[in-house]
Amino acid sequence: MLALAAAPLGIRTLAVDASADACAGQVAELLIAGWSDEAALADFARRVDAVTFDFENVPAATAERLAGQVAVHPNPQALAVAQDRLAEKTLFRESGLDTPGFAAVDTRDDLVAAVERIGLPAILKTRRLGYDGKGQFRLKTAADIDAAWAALGEAAAKHGLILEAFVPFDRELSVVAVRGRDGEFRTWPLTRNWHVDGVLSLSLAPAPGTSDALEQAAVAQAKAIAERLGYVGVFALELFVRGGELLGNEMAPRVHNSGHWTIEGAHTSQFENHIRAVLGLPLGDTGARGASAMLNWIGEMPDPAPVLSVADGHWHDYGKEARPGRKVGHATICASDAGSLRAKLVEVGSGLGREAQVAPAIEVLG
Amino acid sequence: MLALAAAPLGIRTLAVDASADACAGQVAELLIAGWSDEAALADFARRVDAVTFDFENVPAATAERLAGQVAVHPNPQALAVAQDRLAEKTLFRESGLDTPGFAAVDTRDDLVAAVERIGLPAILKTRRLGYDGKGQFRLKTAADIDAAWAALGEAAAKHGLILEAFVPFDRELSVVAVRGRDGEFRTWPLTRNWHVDGVLSLSLAPAPGTSDALEQAAVAQAKAIAERLGYVGVFALELFVRGGELLGNEMAPRVHNSGHWTIEGAHTSQFENHIRAVLGLPLGDTGARGASAMLNWIGEMPDPAPVLSVADGHWHDYGKEARPGRKVGHATICASDAGSLRAKLVEVGSGLGREAQVAPAIEVLG
Repeated sequence: MLALAAAPLGIRTLAVDASADACAGQVAELLIAGWSDEAALADFARRVDAVTFDFENVPAATAERLAGQVAVHPNPQALAVAQDRLAEKTLFRESGLDTPGFAAVDTRDDLVAAVERIGLPAILKTRRLGYDGKGQFRLKTAADIDAAWAALGEAAAKHGLILEAFVPFDRELSVVAVRGRDGEFRTWPLTRNWHVDGVLSLSLAPAPGTSDALEQAAVAQAKAIAERLGYVGVFALELFVRGGELLGNEMAPRVHNSGHWTIEGAHTSQFENHIRAVLGLPLGDTGARGASAMLNWIGEMPDPAPVLSVADGHWHDYGKEARPGRKVGHATICASDAGSLRAKLVEVGSGLGREAQVAPAIEVLG
Repeated sequence: MLALAAAPLGIRTLAVDASADACAGQVAELLIAGWSDEAALADFARRVDAVTFDFENVPAATAERLAGQVAVHPNPQALAVAQDRLAEKTLFRESGLDTPGFAAVDTRDDLVAAVERIGLPAILKTRRLGYDGKGQFRLKTAADIDAAWAALGEAAAKHGLILEAFVPFDRELSVVAVRGRDGEFRTWPLTRNWHVDGVLSLSLAPAPGTSDALEQAAVAQAKAIAERLGYVGVFALELFVRGGELLGNEMAPRVHNSGHWTIEGAHTSQFENHIRAVLGLPLGDTGARGASAMLNWIGEMPDPAPVLSVADGHWHDYGKEARPGRKVGHATICASDAGSLRAKLVEVGSGLGREAQVAPAIEVLG
């Protein structure tokens, strides 16, 4: 999607991925190389004017090596912070954004102490390389400590672990934001998100029923974090809302699934603004065109007809092989207002036999 | 732009062009072959599920050969009619759409007789292979007959000629339309166009100041023509308005420059709907999102900053080498209403030092 956004700007994209199947290869030249293939990456860096990524698990060392040769945005230090749940949450607190309780866990003893301090329920997670609920273990009682350590103890040495308090929240929101090389900062309207089994299932934007005060607070937090990191490009700040207060969950240092609706639902998409930011071009208008809903397709693509048949319904098939749990595509439904969006979602949900997936949006828009 | 629209639908594009520089090669696999390279085209046809084109001068014989192997939309017969100004204008008249006077010219004697019958001023054109004002000669007096024949007499034997009455018109409009494989027919709002030296310079959509009756008449003509041709895909019908009446100018059997605004200005772009039509998918909503203006970049790309700096301003750089008279890109400026569009065009025109290019739109929107 970044390459598709770059093309109209006259920007040619050279993608690097370890896999020959990487979907960027459908619309851009693809260089097949692993993150530690220094020779291939040096050659890659010589061929481009700027480097960015749409995947936060690029090793920070790789990003730093590239930054020695060519402009890399966001900067490798920002990437390193966002890759590490402990550094990330520490940054949130330093920026004045509250978070659920957390503690670093390197040993089984650390885990026992952390459970004592933070309380239960809580979630044990790898500090690095986790995403979409992977590398996580939920503890309900102290009896779960053994099972949790059995599941993740081995990862502790490699990636470090973090125990996070499980916070019952009212809503999940994200701020999708962009910061330019000149420091200009813009956000799209707040997005409300629903996850199923740890994977984003549904987003609504602008997030219905969000007060101006909450929106301003969320935007101010995103801006403060971006400025501390000297961040350039698009990122997402995932937030929990509990009793009207914001809690920082995590930050994704890249274009984000909860911003996919911006392709059709905003005047400028997150993908185009990321390209603009990274290349030092003026940032585009982040205003919404109306109300939008994004539905993720996990595992395999459904029949496109119900989405294509609804007015202002848009289809995104990533051309990936079907695989359980894999994000293989999404759809965005746009409408002039919440009522019309609701009616379209009823139609799409029924046409696809996916009433459960659209139900939370229908409830909120009702 | 077709390949960029196809990608999100999960459609892979294989492009054929005689030139290795063809800009489709930036975002799709490119097969380099001439139109008469039967072996290469047979191989191409074996690799695809459907064939279409974004260039009306594909030889009809080539299209017919391909149609023997694979689905080709629009059909080669429709292509053949639209390639021939004489067949095209004859079709317009048969469909009830008036045209400026015209006559076939194969010899110098034909030309003399045609001038007598049609009157002057008139324009002598090649029947085939002309576009953007190429292969045309304007006759003001009978004394121009010699010069016209000297310029185009040689082409008469090869492509045939047509003499067309020069009609002073009030406005130029186009209907950009799409027809599905099931016969479903949709049009985008009428577009008003301004040409400079025979090349499209500026489009405004929806065409300001167009009566419902005129719009309905134009749409009905486009529909009648599409049905007579069994047309599948997007086409543009270029019309003159004279004293409130419509005259058919020409038809482009492809996505059209006057429909480029639909990428950002409509719920579904002409490119996406062409792909949907050709593949038998449901057609998308052709409604406008607001008011849009499209500015063509001819010869070389201007500085992008003034367009990228205006809210809802969009840039399209085709990645072509600069060359006098060549269409190398365009910009689309979108706005919620005519007044806001006008203000943005004033800003963009001044920022680019291209006040003359935007002036007709500013006058009409004023």
